[in-house]
Amino acid sequence: MTSLHPRGVFCAAATPLTADYAPDHTLFVAHTKRLIAQGCDGVALLGTTGEANSFSLAQRKSLLEVTVEGGVSPEKLMPGTGVAAISETIDLTKHALSLGVNTVVMLPPFYYKGVTDDGLFAAYSEVIERIGDARLRVVVYHIPQVSGVPISHNLIERLRTRYPETVTGIKDSSGDLANHVAMIERFPGFAVLTGADPLLLPLLPKGVAGCITATSNLCAADLAFVYRHYADPSHADEVAAAQARVVTERERTVGPRQMAAIKTLIAQATGEDGWLRLCPPLMALTTDQQRALGGG
Amino acid sequence: MTSLHPRGVFCAAATPLTADYAPDHTLFVAHTKRLIAQGCDGVALLGTTGEANSFSLAQRKSLLEVTVEGGVSPEKLMPGTGVAAISETIDLTKHALSLGVNTVVMLPPFYYKGVTDDGLFAAYSEVIERIGDARLRVVVYHIPQVSGVPISHNLIERLRTRYPETVTGIKDSSGDLANHVAMIERFPGFAVLTGADPLLLPLLPKGVAGCITATSNLCAADLAFVYRHYADPSHADEVAAAQARVVTERERTVGPRQMAAIKTLIAQATGEDGWLRLCPPLMALTTDQQRALGGG
Repeated sequence: MTSLHPRGVFCAAATPLTADYAPDHTLFVAHTKRLIAQGCDGVALLGTTGEANSFSLAQRKSLLEVTVEGGVSPEKLMPGTGVAAISETIDLTKHALSLGVNTVVMLPPFYYKGVTDDGLFAAYSEVIERIGDARLRVVVYHIPQVSGVPISHNLIERLRTRYPETVTGIKDSSGDLANHVAMIERFPGFAVLTGADPLLLPLLPKGVAGCITATSNLCAADLAFVYRHYADPSHADEVAAAQARVVTERERTVGPRQMAAIKTLIAQATGEDGWLRLCPPLMALTTDQQRALGGG
Repeated sequence: MTSLHPRGVFCAAATPLTADYAPDHTLFVAHTKRLIAQGCDGVALLGTTGEANSFSLAQRKSLLEVTVEGGVSPEKLMPGTGVAAISETIDLTKHALSLGVNTVVMLPPFYYKGVTDDGLFAAYSEVIERIGDARLRVVVYHIPQVSGVPISHNLIERLRTRYPETVTGIKDSSGDLANHVAMIERFPGFAVLTGADPLLLPLLPKGVAGCITATSNLCAADLAFVYRHYADPSHADEVAAAQARVVTERERTVGPRQMAAIKTLIAQATGEDGWLRLCPPLMALTTDQQRALGGG
C-alpha cells in the first residue's frame, strides 16, 4: 500500500471570484496555504468544486501559476486538467508539468455521452502519448452525475495495463461505497481516492488511498485527523468526534447548492466577499439563505 | 412568419480531420460550398455533429476563418459558439461577429447538471451583455441527451422578454415533436428549428422556421426540396419521394455511431479519407462496418 500515489487528504478547493467571475488569485493562494496548514496533504485545485470548467484556459493556467509562485510546493498541487477537447487537455497538462506539477486529475472528454470504452481509452491514450513525459501521473476522474461519462472498471484495467507508471489512481465521486471497494479489491497498487468525505473513515481499513473532497474546504483538520489516526485505538474517541464534525459539515452543505453553501461558509469565516460569488450557471445563495446557513 | 430568423435548411456540418484530429480546412470548405450548391440556406458548422467541442478554441476560430476566406458568405454561416466557460463563449462569439458572422448557435454552459433557470438566464445574460453587439443573433440549443442541460420554455420566455432582438430562435434536437409544437404555439415570432430531419415535413405546416440537421450532410437537396415545395400540391409526389429519401438516409445512419456513419458515407462519396476520422472519444467505423454501410 505504501506505493499508492497519490495518498492522503486532498481538498477539492473552491475558487473565490472577482466581480467579473475570474479567479481571485490573492484569496485563492491564502486559502490553499490555510488548507495545507490545517493538515491537507495537498490541494486538488481547478476541479468540479473549483468551477474550473467555468474558466478559460488562460484563467486556469494563471491560477496554477500564481499558486506555485505564491510559495505552495508543486508537489502538493493536483490540478484538474481534463476538458472536452483532448488538445486542450494536453495543453493544460503540459502547462502543469512545466511548473513542476506532475500529478493531475483528468476528467474524460465529457461533451459526448454514451461513448465507448474504446473511445475513452483512445482519448486518454492520445493525451498521455502526445504529452510523452515520464513524470506525469494521472488520476482519472469518475463523477458520472456531473460529467455524464463514467469510468468503467474495464477502462481502468486497460489504462493500467498500457500505462502502469502513469495512470496511478482514480477519484471516485460517485458516492457509491461498493464501487470504491470493488476497485480497491480488483486493482492492487492503484490509488482509489474518494470524493465523499463521510466515506473516508469506512474505506480506510479497506485500503483507500485517501480523499479529494469538497467539505475539506471547511473541515480539513478533522479529515486529516481521521486519516492519520483511524487505526489508533488510543485516539478512537477523537477520531469519532472528528468524523462526526465532518459528517455534520457535509450534511449542512450537500445538495444542489453545495458549492454555494461551502463558499458562503468560507466567506463567513474569512470576511472576504470574493468567496460569495459563483460563476453562472451556478448561483450564489440569497442573503436569506446565507443567513440561515450561518446559523446552522 | 416572414420575420423568423434564422429560416431555412441548415446543415449541421460534419468536420473532416487531419491525422492529428485537427479540422481539415480544404476538405471542409469544399463540403460547405457543396452543401450550399445543393440547396442549403446555410451551414451550421462547429456543432455537435461537427465535433466542435473536441477542438481547441484556436482550431474553432481557424475553421470559421478559412471558410469565410474561402468565399462562403458569412451570412450563410451559423457556427456553434457555446462552451462550458462563458468567458470562452464570449470569445468565440465575438470572433464570429468580427468575421461578419452574426448568427450563432449557443449551447448553455454544459458541465454542471441540474442547474436552475436562474443560473442559465444569468449565463446567457452575461454572454449577451458582455458582447454588447446589436448585430448578434442567438439560436439557443436544446439537446439534453448530449448536453445534459435542457432549455426550458420558462427560460426561453425570460430570454425573449429581456433580449427580444437577440435571442431569436432555438435549435431543438430533442427529437420530441410535441416540444417543437408547444414552442411554436407559445412563442410567435420565435424561430424554432428542428434538429431531426424527418420532423421537418410534419412541422412545416405548423410554422417551424426550418431545420439544422446531421443527415443533410448526405441529402441536402432533398431536404431543401421538402422545405421549398411542401405546400405545393403540384409537387406532392416529388416532396413525398424526397422525404422518403431523407428518412432512409437518416435510418441508415442514426444511432450511437451516427457521426461516424455520416462521415463514412461522405468519404465514400468524395473518395477523401479525411472524412473517415473522428476525434476521440468518438471512433471511426471499422472497415467491416464501413463496407456494410456502403452496401446499404
